[in-house]
Amino acid sequence: MDRRQHRARPIRGPVREVLTPVEIVRLLADVGAYGVNFHDNDLVPIDATLAQRNQIVRDFKQALADTGLVVPMATTNLFSDPAFKDGAFTSNDPQVRAYALHKTMHAIDLGVELGAKIYVFWGGREGTETDAAKDPITAIKRSRDAMNFLCEYVLDQGYDLKFALEAKPNEPRGDMYNATTGHMLAFLTTLAHPEMVGVNPEVAHEHMAGLNFTHAVAQALEAGKLFHIDLNDQAFGRYDQDFRFGAVNLKSAFFLVKLLEDNGYDGSRHFDAHAYRTEDYEGVKDFARGCMRTYLILKEKAERFNADQEIQALLIEINADEGTMAPYQGAYTSAKVAALKGHSFDRPALGARGLSYERLDQLTVELLLGVQ
Amino acid sequence: MDRRQHRARPIRGPVREVLTPVEIVRLLADVGAYGVNFHDNDLVPIDATLAQRNQIVRDFKQALADTGLVVPMATTNLFSDPAFKDGAFTSNDPQVRAYALHKTMHAIDLGVELGAKIYVFWGGREGTETDAAKDPITAIKRSRDAMNFLCEYVLDQGYDLKFALEAKPNEPRGDMYNATTGHMLAFLTTLAHPEMVGVNPEVAHEHMAGLNFTHAVAQALEAGKLFHIDLNDQAFGRYDQDFRFGAVNLKSAFFLVKLLEDNGYDGSRHFDAHAYRTEDYEGVKDFARGCMRTYLILKEKAERFNADQEIQALLIEINADEGTMAPYQGAYTSAKVAALKGHSFDRPALGARGLSYERLDQLTVELLLGVQ
Amino acid sequence: MDRRQHRARPIRGPVREVLTPVEIVRLLADVGAYGVNFHDNDLVPIDATLAQRNQIVRDFKQALADTGLVVPMATTNLFSDPAFKDGAFTSNDPQVRAYALHKTMHAIDLGVELGAKIYVFWGGREGTETDAAKDPITAIKRSRDAMNFLCEYVLDQGYDLKFALEAKPNEPRGDMYNATTGHMLAFLTTLAHPEMVGVNPEVAHEHMAGLNFTHAVAQALEAGKLFHIDLNDQAFGRYDQDFRFGAVNLKSAFFLVKLLEDNGYDGSRHFDAHAYRTEDYEGVKDFARGCMRTYLILKEKAERFNADQEIQALLIEINADEGTMAPYQGAYTSAKVAALKGHSFDRPALGARGLSYERLDQLTVELLLGVQ
Amino acid sequence: MDRRQHRARPIRGPVREVLTPVEIVRLLADVGAYGVNFHDNDLVPIDATLAQRNQIVRDFKQALADTGLVVPMATTNLFSDPAFKDGAFTSNDPQVRAYALHKTMHAIDLGVELGAKIYVFWGGREGTETDAAKDPITAIKRSRDAMNFLCEYVLDQGYDLKFALEAKPNEPRGDMYNATTGHMLAFLTTLAHPEMVGVNPEVAHEHMAGLNFTHAVAQALEAGKLFHIDLNDQAFGRYDQDFRFGAVNLKSAFFLVKLLEDNGYDGSRHFDAHAYRTEDYEGVKDFARGCMRTYLILKEKAERFNADQEIQALLIEINADEGTMAPYQGAYTSAKVAALKGHSFDRPALGARGLSYERLDQLTVELLLGVQ
Repeated sequence: MDRRQHRARPIRGPVREVLTPVEIVRLLADVGAYGVNFHDNDLVPIDATLAQRNQIVRDFKQALADTGLVVPMATTNLFSDPAFKDGAFTSNDPQVRAYALHKTMHAIDLGVELGAKIYVFWGGREGTETDAAKDPITAIKRSRDAMNFLCEYVLDQGYDLKFALEAKPNEPRGDMYNATTGHMLAFLTTLAHPEMVGVNPEVAHEHMAGLNFTHAVAQALEAGKLFHIDLNDQAFGRYDQDFRFGAVNLKSAFFLVKLLEDNGYDGSRHFDAHAYRTEDYEGVKDFARGCMRTYLILKEKAERFNADQEIQALLIEINADEGTMAPYQGAYTSAKVAALKGHSFDRPALGARGLSYERLDQLTVELLLGVQ
Repeated sequence: MDRRQHRARPIRGPVREVLTPVEIVRLLADVGAYGVNFHDNDLVPIDATLAQRNQIVRDFKQALADTGLVVPMATTNLFSDPAFKDGAFTSNDPQVRAYALHKTMHAIDLGVELGAKIYVFWGGREGTETDAAKDPITAIKRSRDAMNFLCEYVLDQGYDLKFALEAKPNEPRGDMYNATTGHMLAFLTTLAHPEMVGVNPEVAHEHMAGLNFTHAVAQALEAGKLFHIDLNDQAFGRYDQDFRFGAVNLKSAFFLVKLLEDNGYDGSRHFDAHAYRTEDYEGVKDFARGCMRTYLILKEKAERFNADQEIQALLIEINADEGTMAPYQGAYTSAKVAALKGHSFDRPALGARGLSYERLDQLTVELLLGVQ
Repeated sequence: MDRRQHRARPIRGPVREVLTPVEIVRLLADVGAYGVNFHDNDLVPIDATLAQRNQIVRDFKQALADTGLVVPMATTNLFSDPAFKDGAFTSNDPQVRAYALHKTMHAIDLGVELGAKIYVFWGGREGTETDAAKDPITAIKRSRDAMNFLCEYVLDQGYDLKFALEAKPNEPRGDMYNATTGHMLAFLTTLAHPEMVGVNPEVAHEHMAGLNFTHAVAQALEAGKLFHIDLNDQAFGRYDQDFRFGAVNLKSAFFLVKLLEDNGYDGSRHFDAHAYRTEDYEGVKDFARGCMRTYLILKEKAERFNADQEIQALLIEINADEGTMAPYQGAYTSAKVAALKGHSFDRPALGARGLSYERLDQLTVELLLGVQ
Repeated sequence: MDRRQHRARPIRGPVREVLTPVEIVRLLADVGAYGVNFHDNDLVPIDATLAQRNQIVRDFKQALADTGLVVPMATTNLFSDPAFKDGAFTSNDPQVRAYALHKTMHAIDLGVELGAKIYVFWGGREGTETDAAKDPITAIKRSRDAMNFLCEYVLDQGYDLKFALEAKPNEPRGDMYNATTGHMLAFLTTLAHPEMVGVNPEVAHEHMAGLNFTHAVAQALEAGKLFHIDLNDQAFGRYDQDFRFGAVNLKSAFFLVKLLEDNGYDGSRHFDAHAYRTEDYEGVKDFARGCMRTYLILKEKAERFNADQEIQALLIEINADEGTMAPYQGAYTSAKVAALKGHSFDRPALGARGLSYERLDQLTVELLLGVQ
């Protein structure tokens, strides 16, 4: 896990003094993070003058240079300002839509200046409380127009930058458009430059909809679209909790880590989580270290799973292919189909076979518990 | 709503005597349905001889001819038989995967013989209880191989048939692959013949994941992929309830009907619901009539929404475009972007504008309640 | 609905200028509300001096006198200040627990001074993110000690005041103690003065757990414990949405109103909801009026339900008692039991009876839609 | 864990041959279970003659004697037969209500004959799909009448038997009455013989409503009402999954085991779970052993948590009481209250204190993962 990092945003809140970006960089360096991400306004206040902006960026670059941290990803805050209360790219107000493009282009410039290669889009207000107020088809078209425009902008500027779309089902809006990673994967295939665009799945966001996050990440990986990932944890069917990675469900965290490691995912492992409000800054460091420790422990567990003789023997048995179906496998031919349609299957025998999944799952549980 | 229909399957159960397919056709005709759909084994038992099969099909065709009902859609039961206990196309057992293709090809033949133009795929066992037992990437590849094979089969046979993929997040498996309509829309773009393949969203299935169904249907419609739809109702975050259309949430049902009608959806309105277990056959008829009545009432409400002067005036105001953004709209140009980046926005003014969505939503509620 | 009212708190937020308490009273009077409720710090800032506090209270009383609004209920803010980040009465810190009692007693004095007869307890931070940090049995005992202490305080002061406990399953804490109205009803029976203590169920809070709110309110009513109610709306399994009453599910809102009206509930109908963030102050008024209008419309629908001949005939049929079970009904006797144990029931006949619930529910739906 | 056991019911299903009760006893003995529970009709078919019933009971007793298994708990099946399609004790049909009492009394006799000391009530059909069909207050009164009647029956017969009420939020009904353990705890306080009645919480049932199960069990324990417990596992917001204990969430399972063991719970640990449908009988045994193994592993982890020096030092620090609040603690007095009301608290200091819960939770996670 050589690309771990933390977003600047989470590490502040009403119970703790707000850290400056430079302080955040130093805190992250202190706990051993690889990088730091930010929303434009985490770094530069929305009402900063150009001179202030330039000073902030200089100081931030110096802090990066001092600590060795990098900025793998940047993003735009299109949700905090009241201007975005009904969405940014999907707002009914053409001025708001134009302002959202304006703000995002400036934020892209900032991100690229700081070295970001991935630009995340989380449409924090792209949704609705009542479908009376916006035609959902119009909303899709507006989203597409904005993404196509911004792809053109990146190409026009010659930036080396890819986009990663982040889904969320609800909160802060009643319902958000493109509610899951699946919807985002479908949406991006309809863009003018789909090759520039992938996804940034977040554990908490799929869990809010009670979905198996590992399956969604697998779909993105298999499609070559896993450009970035946000790691945290969250109970199903709850408000956006953004807990420490692994804090809720160790088993699902394990399958996720295993998927990423087995498939050589080489993007960022971004811990987009928040320390409990009970913590002071020592607690925030405990939290940040905990995210990374749990990831590394689970990574080692995945290696052990792959090396465990009993587990691997079971997996071989489960996937056994005695070869009788070989005539029907491979590319489609009419002859093959005729044979397959005429084949007589021993249905009861297929149904009677025991699959040993309880034993396999229990072995996995015991490996997780460290007693295997 | 000239294409309403009912699937044969739901109208039976342990509290009522099982009807024969012919009896179901007559019951549906009796309540005014347009068509009847079926799983292969709803019509022909899985262990029927060829002679029995042919007799059943003859009787069924006669019942269709007698009543005027049509068969717009057919599908395969790939979930009831114990052979499919670990999936059909995604099973770890190559014999089961081959048997699933075999069974589906025969079922496609049957569906085409009876006039079906749409073939639905709901992978009732394509999922897992533990991700230790199956690599989710392998599962995706197996699903794709099966769909590509069956597309080839349809092309090879010269059938006039399209596929509609139906998602479900869980139940009967712990987690199902391609959990939502969004995931299915993404998956189908990776197929060899995506033009033959669309989706069959079901209200209850998206509601199980607490998702806004209208948004998912809008995405499918906008992508030209809404090939079929399953109408019923369901509380969020529950077991698969399959209640009468509109029985849980009239407001979300209204926005769905409005979307379908406003956009000229011309496919089936398939009521894939079940009468409460408290009902005898008169109750089943009440239930079937209720589905259709509620759809028609909401269709009329949608027309009234579109004609209501107060509502329409609000919508015009909400979407007002005073034209100042015109220089930045339309196709991307570098000059346009430079101007937009330099434009000065009155952010506080954008944020201060009241949008009247409470009033609009309350007008909608009162229209639904019949007091507007 | 002669006791409708609004809490002072919701009507402000980052998208709108914060109103003073006096302005809120005037806004509520403007839309026709009956009363106004408040948290102590909605009225008096947590850091106000005694002189400031007295001036605020004088102004507020004058506004009440000017408008005729009353204060039926008051409550304590035990969640906003960082001191309460790990709970108030259940905090692990004995100073915080003492401060929570101190703050509540002063707030009770304020509420009584303004005429409140009901004092609500919502323990906004009484919960946990990890059960490692607090023994749940200790938490229960601390909650009980605090409630017993405060009951003694009210008795000691001779106040005419009852307590109403409000449950919430989660948010802002990962899990809240006494997660539902059911848990609160059980908890209060273990107090030293249970006769002083009832519940304040809130639609949104039970819906967050996907529970039927009407059933919970019925249990409270039947036990004589429905001392107050918070009306709003919310999708199941989501963050705390606090939407306008009836904004999500008209059918469940209808059954709730019917329950309250049929059973002569004479406490407050408190609309504890928030206008969408899209609204300006005119929108806030639309929202407030909408809550009250929808309640009144549903109240009239309930009267129509009770007067509808077709519906009432069905209900009589459904509940028919032909009298054969009379020998077994009433108080327990050994003879009755012997007879009942020996009675031979026609089980298939009991199971075969159709109950017409689909028809009844469809009639209800059509009554709601105004087409019946 | 000296009282582990399995219910007869789960170990069968359409994918496996149904075992006879005697075979189930032998299978449970084989995997080392302590006891076996049953619904009346798991043992004696609903249509058995008296002679058949007596033979079955004789054979079952012999199997118990042969294996040393005991029957700690019994219960009634009031949900499978169509007669109960609209409830048993809450049915609108007085004949069904009488039949439910009749059936339960006979089943209690059977349970007592086989040695059961606890009688569980799970009202599998006590609920509704539409609140139009049943007044929820009537349903509560019917439930209470039935429970009071059956308490009298047990007292009248002189049986040594207690009742344990089991809650479930939904499924198979749309909504079930007394939806959670909290509602059941409240309900039982309204009975004529509350001392005879406790609860039987089930992990899966509280998790269906997304509730913290450990908190519900703590409330029951603290009230002296934890008469029985059903252990299994389940994702939040899903159909009733009844997975192997610990199969979904190891952390919540750990806190549950710790609560039971720390508080000396001496009732049954009943594993009311089902093996995956993928399993043959060897898999069913793996599953049963897995439930017990995971419980024992977590029990040992709880002991280590209680002995871990770093964790215990943190807990002492978290709960530190420097004594300054002592004057305000203990029984209520007017003088104490006056002093407490006048005490000046250093609110910012209370809020600024870091609580180290992230560190404590991470230590817990690492203890669970076996790396601590």
